[in-house]
Parts: sequence; C-alpha cells; structure tokens
Amino acid sequence: MSTIKRYDKDDSTSYALGATLSIELLKARPDCVRRIYLHSKLNSAEIINTIESLADQASAAIDIETNDKAFRILSQKENCFVIAEFDKFDAPIDGSAPHIVLVNPSNAGNLGTIIRSAVGFDLPDIAIIKPAADIFDPKTVRASMGSLFRLRFSHYDQFEDYISAHKDRPIYPFMLNRDSKDLREVDIPNTFSLVFGNEATGLPKEFACIGTPVQIHHSDAIDSLNLPIALSIGLYSATRSRDFSPHFFDVANEVQL
Amino acid sequence: MSTIKRYDKDDSTSYALGATLSIELLKARPDCVRRIYLHSKLNSAEIINTIESLADQASAAIDIETNDKAFRILSQKENCFVIAEFDKFDAPIDGSAPHIVLVNPSNAGNLGTIIRSAVGFDLPDIAIIKPAADIFDPKTVRASMGSLFRLRFSHYDQFEDYISAHKDRPIYPFMLNRDSKDLREVDIPNTFSLVFGNEATGLPKEFACIGTPVQIHHSDAIDSLNLPIALSIGLYSATRSRDFSPHFFDVANEVQL
Repeated sequence: MSTIKRYDKDDSTSYALGATLSIELLKARPDCVRRIYLHSKLNSAEIINTIESLADQASAAIDIETNDKAFRILSQKENCFVIAEFDKFDAPIDGSAPHIVLVNPSNAGNLGTIIRSAVGFDLPDIAIIKPAADIFDPKTVRASMGSLFRLRFSHYDQFEDYISAHKDRPIYPFMLNRDSKDLREVDIPNTFSLVFGNEATGLPKEFACIGTPVQIHHSDAIDSLNLPIALSIGLYSATRSRDFSPHFFDVANEVQL
Repeated sequence: MSTIKRYDKDDSTSYALGATLSIELLKARPDCVRRIYLHSKLNSAEIINTIESLADQASAAIDIETNDKAFRILSQKENCFVIAEFDKFDAPIDGSAPHIVLVNPSNAGNLGTIIRSAVGFDLPDIAIIKPAADIFDPKTVRASMGSLFRLRFSHYDQFEDYISAHKDRPIYPFMLNRDSKDLREVDIPNTFSLVFGNEATGLPKEFACIGTPVQIHHSDAIDSLNLPIALSIGLYSATRSRDFSPHFFDVANEVQL
C-alpha cells in the first residue's frame, strides 16, 4: 500500500481525477502512469475493463488498487471513482509550429480550459512565461479534460528568453486597449505566436511595440473578455482556413517521453 | 442591524461580492440595491467615495453599513471588502433582437462567463430553458463581472415555449456531431437565435432537424470545446460584420425595472 498525500506543486507526480481523465491519460501517455486508484463504489464493468486493458498495454507495469482513502484525500468531487497518479513529463514545444504564448497566467482552471482549446484547434504548442499557474495542478488537468496529455509546453523566465529561442516569427500580442488592430482585419500566416497576458491585467503596455498588436472588438459594457475566451477566439480566427483532418496529432510519434 | 444569511435560490435578494461588482450594480441597476456592506479593513477612500456617491444618486435610500460578520457569512474570498445586497429583477428579452438560447445550462460559473460574452458582443438577450443554473447565484453574478446587470433574460419551461413566443426567426442549433454545417461557412443574418445545449451533453439529437444546425470545427483530440468558449466563438462569428459603437446599451432606457 502506497502513501497518499494531497498534491503539491513541488511533487514529481500529479493526479488525474475521474474515469474520463484517467482513460485519456492511459491512452495518450501510458508510460507516465504510476498507479490507478479505484473506488469500491465503481460498478461500471466497462470502465474497469477499459482501464485494465489500457494498463496492460503500457510498457511498464501499472498498479491498480481499490482504495477509498485515496479519494477522501485527493478528490473533493462526489462522483469521482477513478484516480490516476502520473509522473510529470516534459514535452517541449516544436520550434517550427505556431505557438501560443501565455504571459503569467494565474488561474489553474483557466490554464486547463486554454489547453483544451489549444489542442482542439490543433495548436498544441504553448510557451508559458513565469510566474504562472501550475500546468500539472490537478485543477489544470481536470479543466483541460485530459488534453494536457496531448500538449507540448515550455516554460521561460522572461518573454525575452522565449523570443531569443524562437526568432523571426510573426508575433501577435492580444491587447486590451482600443488602438490595436481589429482581429477581424488581420490575416494571420501559418506560423505565428499569439501572445496573451494575465487574467487581471492583460499584457503590459510594452507589448504594443512588438509585432502586430491585435484586439478583439467588443462593446464598452464590459472591460474585457474572459482570458480563455479571448484566446479561443484568437485560435478560431488564426485557423479559419485550416482543414481539421482527424488524428492530426499522434502524441506517441511526436513527443519524446 | 439586518439579519444576514447565506444565499438561497428561493430568496428574493442576492449578493454582488466585491467592490467592482457592487459598483457595476450601483451604476446599472441602482434601484435594485437594498444594502451595501463594507468591511472594516476597506481603506480605499476612492472606493468608499464612489459607492457613497452612486448610492446617493439612487431614487430610494440605500443603507451602507460596516459589518464584518456579513463577509464571514457571505464571502469565501479573502480580498472581498464590499458586498451589495440587491433585489432580483425582471428584464425580459427583446423580441426583435438576436437571441442566445441556453438549453439546460448547469453551471453557475459558466452561465456568468456566457453573460459576460453576450453583453461584450452586444447580444444581451438570453433565453434560458429550464432546468438551469440560477442566474442570480452570487457565483453567476461574479463570473459575469457584473454584466448580468446589463442583460435581458427570460426563462421557459420547454424549448417549444420559446419557439412559440418567438416565431419566424432563423435558428442555429450548435451541435456536437460532425455532420452539421461548419460555422465558418454560415452567413448569419441580423436577427437570429443561436441555441446551445448543456455542458455535459450538448443539444439533444432532435435539434439537428431545427433551422440550420452548425458546428465549430475542431480536431479529434478533444470531444468538444468548453461551452462558454463555443458560445463566444458563435457570438464572435455572428457579429463579424458589426460595428461596436460605444455605449450601445443604456440599461436605464431599455429595460423596465
């Protein structure tokens, strides 16, 4: 029996809470899974079979144990009957792909929702400028609906460090002020970096001098759109001429584990 | 001194938690404000002056009291120093305006984020099909960033009741399946109803036979986009040829209190 403790950002492992997330994890990153906890009340033979069969296919053995205590410690949700413990992993961004750059995102739930949209719009490369919400926080994992396991991401101490590592690409800072270019009038090329600021403050003013600053037009009745929403509208717009063919991103072929 | 109790959906009043929300409320719906609680730790003269001067302008007297107990009962957030208690209000949707129709939205935070986008895209008329999250839940109010106070909304028991009340308008059900029309290829006219389903289930299949069913293309790596995000992309798309002039929606002129 293993010791179970509440998640801490300095831990080397994190948790996927719930059957859907755990199954996503087993499909996308089986080699990161350490252990699966099942609740004694889990009575879906289908879920148990799926988990057992995916766990069998992993290259390293995955412990599956029924352990209700794990749920009392790790989950606040009543309808959580599966928890997967996994090793945090590296999956650096692809230098030739379009990038999303998040400058100091502060909310784990928002970060997860952003990841879900990024993977959904086939733009699964996110650069994160620190300080930032923890990408492996179980709240991030949950809000991503498991799409975190199909993401590539790199952290940088400063925006300048990101720019030095990825030169010569069109940069589109999304600004809150009203003198940037209207997103509807911007033709975004195939390789780009869309840059978004913090939830409360947006991007600092200096970003108005970088690349092509853009804004999403909205009425004066609100101060700004919610960050994951502004970002997702940016992604929708940047991919408007794309064909979303199925199975675009096979994580096993693309990412070194 | 008034009795203070935790919010319940059957109450005739609700709460705006925080200075920003309370000020938004005082600006948009002063006549609904019953009472303002200030925390003894609130030390911003600017906030206090703004609140006092807005309260003075209301037609009925608004009590302002320093009362730390109210914060212990009503707020979980540490940085909440102002709470406004307000009467729930009616603000029926405008039959000639474009509508957003939410079929069984279940999450108060999502509902608030949706309202923020609706008001932001100058589409402040939302029809809600019950059962639904409570539009006056303090969580909804908070996630709306106060834009709830600039919204028009009506509740219906069934989608059919909404349709009977609002005939002859182009209907666009947003579907999760992949045989609906791609949103990018749809030209949405000036008056319309965009219809969105529940967070977990989307719209029932029957909606594929109503109006012009649309979908937002995304990769197969996710099951669906987050509901407020899909909806906001729909609003962005439906308003792509609009001019967002300032002060579009003067709530005092538009809505009978």
